[in-house]
Amino acid sequence: METTRAGRPRLTERRRPGTTARDEILDAAAELFTTRGYASTSTRAIAEAVGIRQASLYHYFKTKDELLSALLHQTVTPTLTFLAALDHDSPARTLHALAAFDGAQLLTSRWNLGALYLLPELREARLAAFWTERERLRRAYLDLSRTVLAATGVAEDAADLPFRLVESLVNMWIPPPHPDPATLAGHVADACLRVLGITSDELAELRASGPVRAGHL
Amino acid sequence: METTRAGRPRLTERRRPGTTARDEILDAAAELFTTRGYASTSTRAIAEAVGIRQASLYHYFKTKDELLSALLHQTVTPTLTFLAALDHDSPARTLHALAAFDGAQLLTSRWNLGALYLLPELREARLAAFWTERERLRRAYLDLSRTVLAATGVAEDAADLPFRLVESLVNMWIPPPHPDPATLAGHVADACLRVLGITSDELAELRASGPVRAGHL
Repeated sequence: METTRAGRPRLTERRRPGTTARDEILDAAAELFTTRGYASTSTRAIAEAVGIRQASLYHYFKTKDELLSALLHQTVTPTLTFLAALDHDSPARTLHALAAFDGAQLLTSRWNLGALYLLPELREARLAAFWTERERLRRAYLDLSRTVLAATGVAEDAADLPFRLVESLVNMWIPPPHPDPATLAGHVADACLRVLGITSDELAELRASGPVRAGHL
Repeated sequence: METTRAGRPRLTERRRPGTTARDEILDAAAELFTTRGYASTSTRAIAEAVGIRQASLYHYFKTKDELLSALLHQTVTPTLTFLAALDHDSPARTLHALAAFDGAQLLTSRWNLGALYLLPELREARLAAFWTERERLRRAYLDLSRTVLAATGVAEDAADLPFRLVESLVNMWIPPPHPDPATLAGHVADACLRVLGITSDELAELRASGPVRAGHL
């Protein structure tokens, strides 16, 4: 369907994913933050990229920090939801499913939001809510890892490595189209168990027993 | 020895590590880039942090990019030097030694320079020399990993994970004093071999055979 180019064309032509203005703003912010940098991006530039006035943007997000906070939550919330729906019958299987899901999420994001994690600006108190959520995810990995380590006898210091391995996918992200994120994420999930001392035979057994059921997901 | 506080006191009181003005400038730049952000830091602010004039700073570094480039090279050069001096008798042992050294380097840096790797500004052509060096290091990891994988039969896709595991230490960096970086780096080195399918028994054997000799290091 063609839209007229007169007036404020970009308000009717939706050029960005998302059905709402809020989603379009988030997508534009994600693009600019990850390609030009957070400090170098103004809310005016974001409004311009969407094709709306700065005043309209403020209707949805009061500050640049609020935008950043919403974007960061997007990197964690789906995985926490997935985790809550997982069967927790076997820690190794649960950790494998968690890592595979989380890894695929990071790899298939339209913009590499995880690349923002190390920004000095992210240490601000205003982003405390995001860090709390992320710490909750890290703790979930840690608890599962520790249970696996207790069985394999590998040093406790390895407990944080599965979370870090998945996180390192941020460095392997490429722009869409993403060729085969499930395969790479699956290999990283395998690696998460290997660093905890799970053997190739045990991994094969785990794979043969089918994917972990995840309630409604 | 006390210095007089009159005149330009900071030129005589060396407050930063390094015996040369160049080292002091690099240290100040590293601090500001990693704590305030690259885009938000001016060469004037760096000069002020050292206690020199901006014109004096330009004597050593023509641009902010030149400073960034020098700092980034510091994260890679010592490891490449170490690698060149290593005995290459066993790929598994060499990879273990490389990962342990590289990991300890990242963990003990005074400022977390690795946190700058994902900055959009780093994709600039002016930093191509750094990326070439870093790619050289990544290739060295890859070659060693592939040789190990050929022996263990684990999927080829795991070949990039040792490099990524070590790199993930950037997310585990804490400010000095660093409690025991060698232990954590050693566990990460173990993990590098585990993701390639090396078993706990093989790791124990490798450890028992003593550290890899590194020529003059």
